[in-house]
Amino acid sequence: MELIESLQWRYATKKMNGEKIPQDKLERILEATRLAPSSYGLTPYQVVVVEDQELKERLVGACYGQTQLKDSSAVLVFAVWDEITEWAVENYINDIATKRNIPVEVLNDFKGMMIGTISNMDEEQKTIWAQKQAYIGLGFSLVASALEEVDSTPMEGFLPNKVDEVLGLRELGLKSTVVLTLGYRDTEGDSLSTMKKVRRDNLFIRK
Amino acid sequence: MELIESLQWRYATKKMNGEKIPQDKLERILEATRLAPSSYGLTPYQVVVVEDQELKERLVGACYGQTQLKDSSAVLVFAVWDEITEWAVENYINDIATKRNIPVEVLNDFKGMMIGTISNMDEEQKTIWAQKQAYIGLGFSLVASALEEVDSTPMEGFLPNKVDEVLGLRELGLKSTVVLTLGYRDTEGDSLSTMKKVRRDNLFIRK
Repeated sequence: MELIESLQWRYATKKMNGEKIPQDKLERILEATRLAPSSYGLTPYQVVVVEDQELKERLVGACYGQTQLKDSSAVLVFAVWDEITEWAVENYINDIATKRNIPVEVLNDFKGMMIGTISNMDEEQKTIWAQKQAYIGLGFSLVASALEEVDSTPMEGFLPNKVDEVLGLRELGLKSTVVLTLGYRDTEGDSLSTMKKVRRDNLFIRK
Repeated sequence: MELIESLQWRYATKKMNGEKIPQDKLERILEATRLAPSSYGLTPYQVVVVEDQELKERLVGACYGQTQLKDSSAVLVFAVWDEITEWAVENYINDIATKRNIPVEVLNDFKGMMIGTISNMDEEQKTIWAQKQAYIGLGFSLVASALEEVDSTPMEGFLPNKVDEVLGLRELGLKSTVVLTLGYRDTEGDSLSTMKKVRRDNLFIRK
């Protein structure tokens, strides 16, 4: 399918049929997600990929009983870093230097700019900033899934503390911020599957 | 190009060559953006599409002198609603009823849920929520551009009040939140165009 057709085909699937996504499709969706840009390229979040059935079932309770979680093939939990430390910036700078085979000193100005931006934010602002970057990643996952003809459900309706507890995220210094369920629609069980997609006609202002 | 290849090809273009994007490509990028999901489907933002050369040049000053704005073909400014009112929710509910040809009363529960969510947030939380939805749209624009072989530069580094002033957004009840420049790379002028893309290898946690 072409992009627009794929995006018209996709919808927030509320009932899934339990079928597994072929591994190569899942890996391509993840690779597209990994290629999403973020501010400075820092990517201050992790994506927890849950395929374990027991964990998916426990997530239902943390997400107001939404059953697509247990009937999905995989659940992606976008979780932002609890803290954005200078150590994380150092790590990232070293990664760039290694991958581009350049001396780390060449990146001093870039590093200074990044540390400047981060140190100008309080803890809450840092979290919000990290969450926004995670939402770009979410956008990439959504488009990639549609192109792979895999159904998806983006979800903000969950209890972050419960999700963090089920997945042991606090110990990893992470806070869940948005969830994406991947799988296949249960066409008969989901009345939304046949409903016309509604999008705002007046989204654009032309100048 | 396939999706992954397209996403590897794209990068945050700092120098553009002034070439125009064919209109059909721009329209497909916008349609992909319009099809992005958002919480409840409310889409509490607008996308200002700036093609006017004088306005693009004035935006350079509001964005720390970043010249890709004036050398771009179009600039998308994602601007969130200043206020999320019950009136906006009513409008959206009526739009759904019309497009799906169903009585508006059928949507009462959905409407109540939406109003409940919104009224539980203070003004700042509403803005952050709206911004996150805009970032999903940004993700869709980025992927669609790459698939159309159009270069793009996502930008958080700008003065929102200045951008709002240049585009007259305050009068429209809007606040600029993120900017995307669309056009074509100036390969010789942009040293980043030949650099290896760096993305975190440890983005995923498998469970």
